Amino acid sequence: MIVIGIDIGSVAAKGYIISSGNHHRAMIPTGWSPREAGQAIIDQLLEASGLERNQVEQIYVTGYGRVAFEHADKTVTEIKCHARGVAELYPEIRTIIDIGGQDSKVISTGEKGQVLDFAMNDKCAAGTGRFLQVMATALGLDVSELGDAEDPGQMQTISSMCTVFAESEIIGSLARGNPKGGIIAGLHQSVGKRVAAMARRMGIREQVAFTGGVAINPGVKRALEEEIGTRIIVPEACQYTGALGAALLAWETLRRDL
Amino acid sequence: MIVIGIDIGSVAAKGYIISSGNHHRAMIPTGWSPREAGQAIIDQLLEASGLERNQVEQIYVTGYGRVAFEHADKTVTEIKCHARGVAELYPEIRTIIDIGGQDSKVISTGEKGQVLDFAMNDKCAAGTGRFLQVMATALGLDVSELGDAEDPGQMQTISSMCTVFAESEIIGSLARGNPKGGIIAGLHQSVGKRVAAMARRMGIREQVAFTGGVAINPGVKRALEEEIGTRIIVPEACQYTGALGAALLAWETLRRDL
Ligand code: SF4
Repeated sequence: MIVIGIDIGSVAAKGYIISSGNHHRAMIPTGWSPREAGQAIIDQLLEASGLERNQVEQIYVTGYGRVAFEHADKTVTEIKCHARGVAELYPEIRTIIDIGGQDSKVISTGEKGQVLDFAMNDKCAAGTGRFLQVMATALGLDVSELGDAEDPGQMQTISSMCTVFAESEIIGSLARGNPKGGIIAGLHQSVGKRVAAMARRMGIREQVAFTGGVAINPGVKRALEEEIGTRIIVPEACQYTGALGAALLAWETLRRDL
Repeated sequence: MIVIGIDIGSVAAKGYIISSGNHHRAMIPTGWSPREAGQAIIDQLLEASGLERNQVEQIYVTGYGRVAFEHADKTVTEIKCHARGVAELYPEIRTIIDIGGQDSKVISTGEKGQVLDFAMNDKCAAGTGRFLQVMATALGLDVSELGDAEDPGQMQTISSMCTVFAESEIIGSLARGNPKGGIIAGLHQSVGKRVAAMARRMGIREQVAFTGGVAINPGVKRALEEEIGTRIIVPEACQYTGALGAALLAWETLRRDL
């Protein structure tokens, strides 16, 4: 049995291929075309696994770009896929916080990744990867550099929640000579505060996992832990849990049909 | 009797000087220092009116920068000042929509500019002058050029309410060859929709006035009229109603004390 799960996000497209006793994963920037990104992921997965396209029995796709991608057997919601993927890696997780390039979500899960409830923000750039992207640009940094550049000991609290107003605020703060590392810590805190508020409204049950592209940033993990007041697990494959979930759901459908 | 009213906004500082049977007004960019802007407005008003500082009996200040400005006899809320200023120009107005550089408000007024209710947004850049500023920059235009550049006949609806997401959306829309004038009309519609929703939540009573820096833009007036479904009056001095109101309130205090 061979299946593929693809998660086409706003920033990165991720994929998992699972064959009996084996798996491979791949990630590329989504770029302008979610469709081409999805196709490129399939090509990379086939190459990595040494398998042929016609050997793949099911392809499940999820993520923001899933509607544009026509070569899948089924589209599945991100919520379902993230819950399934995380449950595979950490069965004891009951709350998943996922911060992606353009949205953030909190999922309350039961046994085996069953979705009990969820909350999502994809309307406001604050509390998403986009917020950090805008701020990194304003600070002359790459977004990947933010995590190591923070200095929480010199925390500069950002008062504006809005991405646009916060950008002006940090430019002013820098101009007044405040330490960059403290400003960056303040930015992480802003994201943590916003997402923690969403999580609290839904209710947080331990243990808590943090996934999505932003979970790579240790500063946001730190801020989230402070805001939520509990330890948070970041899966090693934190960007791939959606794709993994999609692949597992495809696998389980096939197995049921046997 | 001689009084001054100053409205120190995020973008522009405005002032009114009223002496018996005479008045003058002035406007300058607020720049980095609300305090200096307020002082510069006083200097300009004195110069324009040929009066001396020690002849001025009362100075009232309003607007975002009012707290930073120490040379006033009293600070007054923008809501109160706008209501008073508009009532002086158009006594029949019952709803004031004010869109400034960084906020938007809707004020429900009674006789003589009495404030009955109000709603305000200063947390989110969408639906404020800042939204249009960001978009003008993305389109390579000055914000003052947007009004005349719109083409509502080719309206390109913007689906993202968020300033950050809408900016990416219009860059993509332009790249796909959509007409700039239609995109600009869509931006005006976005502001109109957002502010109209706030006005509807509060309740709209006719007649309706539109004030603030954004009221100069005829495209936003058009969009607001469409979204609200009623004719809107833009006072000739639409940017000065807050300063005028501050001056009138100062004047009335003096008169009461006589
Ligand atoms: S608060 Fe700022 S970031 Fe959020 S929707 Fe409004 S403009 Fe966008």
